[in-house]
Amino acid sequence: MSPSFAPLKNDTFLRACMRQATDYTPIWLMRQAGRYLPEYCATRSQAGSFMGLATNVNFATEVTLQPLARYPLDAAILFSDILTVPDAMGLGLSFAQGEGPRFANPVRDEAAVGQLHVPDMNKLRYVFDAVTSIRKALSGQVPLIGFSGSPWTLACYMVEGAGSDDYRLVKSMLYSRPDLMHRILQTNADSVAAYLNAQIDAGAQAVMIFDSWGGVLADGAFQQFSLAYTSQVLARLTRKGVDDQVVPRIVFTKGGGMWLQEMGQLDCEVLGLDWTMNLGKARALVGQHKALQGNLDPNILFASPDQIEAQVRRVLDSFGPPHQDLHATGPTHIFNLGHGISQYTPPDHVSCLVSAVHSYSRALRRVA
Amino acid sequence: MSPSFAPLKNDTFLRACMRQATDYTPIWLMRQAGRYLPEYCATRSQAGSFMGLATNVNFATEVTLQPLARYPLDAAILFSDILTVPDAMGLGLSFAQGEGPRFANPVRDEAAVGQLHVPDMNKLRYVFDAVTSIRKALSGQVPLIGFSGSPWTLACYMVEGAGSDDYRLVKSMLYSRPDLMHRILQTNADSVAAYLNAQIDAGAQAVMIFDSWGGVLADGAFQQFSLAYTSQVLARLTRKGVDDQVVPRIVFTKGGGMWLQEMGQLDCEVLGLDWTMNLGKARALVGQHKALQGNLDPNILFASPDQIEAQVRRVLDSFGPPHQDLHATGPTHIFNLGHGISQYTPPDHVSCLVSAVHSYSRALRRVA
Repeated sequence: MSPSFAPLKNDTFLRACMRQATDYTPIWLMRQAGRYLPEYCATRSQAGSFMGLATNVNFATEVTLQPLARYPLDAAILFSDILTVPDAMGLGLSFAQGEGPRFANPVRDEAAVGQLHVPDMNKLRYVFDAVTSIRKALSGQVPLIGFSGSPWTLACYMVEGAGSDDYRLVKSMLYSRPDLMHRILQTNADSVAAYLNAQIDAGAQAVMIFDSWGGVLADGAFQQFSLAYTSQVLARLTRKGVDDQVVPRIVFTKGGGMWLQEMGQLDCEVLGLDWTMNLGKARALVGQHKALQGNLDPNILFASPDQIEAQVRRVLDSFGPPHQDLHATGPTHIFNLGHGISQYTPPDHVSCLVSAVHSYSRALRRVA
Repeated sequence: MSPSFAPLKNDTFLRACMRQATDYTPIWLMRQAGRYLPEYCATRSQAGSFMGLATNVNFATEVTLQPLARYPLDAAILFSDILTVPDAMGLGLSFAQGEGPRFANPVRDEAAVGQLHVPDMNKLRYVFDAVTSIRKALSGQVPLIGFSGSPWTLACYMVEGAGSDDYRLVKSMLYSRPDLMHRILQTNADSVAAYLNAQIDAGAQAVMIFDSWGGVLADGAFQQFSLAYTSQVLARLTRKGVDDQVVPRIVFTKGGGMWLQEMGQLDCEVLGLDWTMNLGKARALVGQHKALQGNLDPNILFASPDQIEAQVRRVLDSFGPPHQDLHATGPTHIFNLGHGISQYTPPDHVSCLVSAVHSYSRALRRVA
C-alpha cells in the first residue's frame, strides 16, 4: 500500500521542473545537507561514520531537514550516497577518514563482471524507508528529490575501486573490452531504474540522475557508454508518484556542456548544468522542452555577500527572462550550484545566496 | 647574435600549423618525453630529480630527443615544466617523490602579490640554453616547439601552492579580490611573453601556451581571467624565429570546448583540443582561420593495436578531409592526444599509434 502524505505547501520547484510559470526562481543546492553545517557534523559524529548516517533512517531524516530549518530552500534532497547501489551489489563500500569512498571488491575482469547482478532491492530498504520518513517529516513544506548515480558514473567507481584522476582502469576496460563495459552498464541501468522507481514508490516527488563523470569521456564514447544508458533508465521510470503527480526527471552531467544538444533529446524534464555553461546559450541549444537547473560556481560562496549577490544576478540574467504565462509552459530556471557545496562554505553566505535568488528573481518578473 | 641551425628536413608539422597542404597528418604527443619510456627513467634517475633533469642542458637535450629515436614523430617539444616561470619569481618549486609540484611560498595575500615581479630572464637561462642545444642536436630532423603555461594556469599553482581538485583558494581570491587576481595575471602575462620570446630567440620554431586549468573557470570568468591574458601574450610574441620563418602559436585550453567560438577569435595559428570535442564540430565552430590539434583520449593507448588503429581512424575521420590545394591555405589537422601521455603507456603502442596516423592519413588523401 502506498504511503500517504500531507499536501504540498510550496510547489515552486515542481512547477519550474514542469516549465510552468512561478512567482520567483526556486533554489536548492546539491549536497545542501553536508559538512558546511555544524549541526550536520554533530549528527554525523553521533552516527560514527558516513554509512552509519546514511543507513539510519532517523539520522538520514534529521540531516535532510537541517538545511531547510536554516534556509527557505524550495526542495529537499534525500540524504544518501550514489554508491549505495554498487554496495548492495556486494562491492563492499567504505569511507576511510579523510579519504573518499573505496570498494573492497572492484570489478576489473571478466569473472567479476560475470558475478554482477541487479541487487535485491531489500538491501536498499534503508534508502526507501528514509524517503518515506523524510516525506512525513517534511509535512508538505517542500517537495523531496530522490537520486541515483548514472550507470556510467557508478561503473567508474566500480572499476576504479575509488575516485581517480585519469580513469585509466575504467577507460582501459571500455576501450579494450567494450563487451564487458556494456555488461556492467546494462546491469547498472537495470539497477538504477529499479532503485529510482522504489524511491518514487516510497514518496520521492522528483528524481535526479547524477552523471558526475560523464564529462571525462571522449566524444563518441560519451554517447555510447553514458548517454545511451541514462536514456534507458529514463524510459523505465514510473511517471507518477504516490500522490498521482508527475515525477520530474533531472539529468546532470558534470562537464557535459559539449553534448548539450544531444542531452536536449533525452526524455526528461530538467537538465542540470555546471558553471562552465552560459545559461542563455544553453537555453538556445536545448530548445523549448526542458527546464534548466544550475549553475553558480560553489567557490563564489567564499566571496563577500555583495559579490555573491552580483554573481547571483549574473546567473539569473544569463538565463534571461523566465516566462510568466500561467496558461502555458515555457522556459524555466531552477537555481542551483554547478556542483556540490564545499564543506568550507560559511553557512551565513548560503542565507545571502538564497535570499538574493528569491528577491532578484521576483524583481526580474516585475520588470519583464 | 642569433644561433644558426641546420635546415629543416621535415616541415610537415609547421606546414600544417600554417594551414598549408601536407602529404599526411603530422603527429606529436604532449609529454612525449616522459616516464612511459624506460630510457627517460634512466636519465631521470641519473639526474636525481625532476628539476635536476630540467635544469641540466645535456639531460634536457637527451630526453627531448629520446622519443624521436623510437618513433617517426613530426615535432620535438622542449623538455621542461610550466612551473619554471613562478619558480624564477622566487616561489620555491619542488617535486616531492610520488607527489605533484609544490611551492614553498604560495601567493595568497596582498603582501605576496605586491612582491611579485616579472623574473629576471637570466634565471631561466637554462631553459633557453636547452632550446639552443636541442635545436642543434635535432640537426633539422623535425621542428622544435617551445612552451609555457598560460597566465591563469600559472596563477592556479601560484595561489594554491600545489595541484588542487576544487581550486578553492585561487577562485576565492578571484571572486573576493579580483584586483589582486588581475595583478597576478598581468605579471604572469608579461613574464610569459618575455619567456616565450626568449625561447623563440634561442631557436624555438613554434610555441604553445598550455591553459591546462582554463576549463575549471565559470563562463564569464574564463573570458576575463584566462582568455584575455592569453590574448595579451599572443599579441606580444615575436612573429619570426631565428631562421626568419614564421613561428606558429598554439593555444590549448583543457576543458575549453565550451568557449571554442571565442577561442576562434584569438590571434594564433593553432587551437589544441581535448578528447571531449568532436573535431568536425570544432572545425565548423572555429572557422577557416585556425589549424586544429588533438585529440585522442590517452587512455586509448591501453587498448590493443587493432583498437588503437580503429580509434585513430575515428579521430581522423571526425576531422573530415584535409585540404590538398598546394596553392592555398585551408583546414588542417595536427594529430595529438587530448592530454599528456600516461606514464603507464606501453611504448610499443605508441609505435602503433604513430604508424596508424601516418598511413591512414596518407590513404585518406589518396581517396579524397
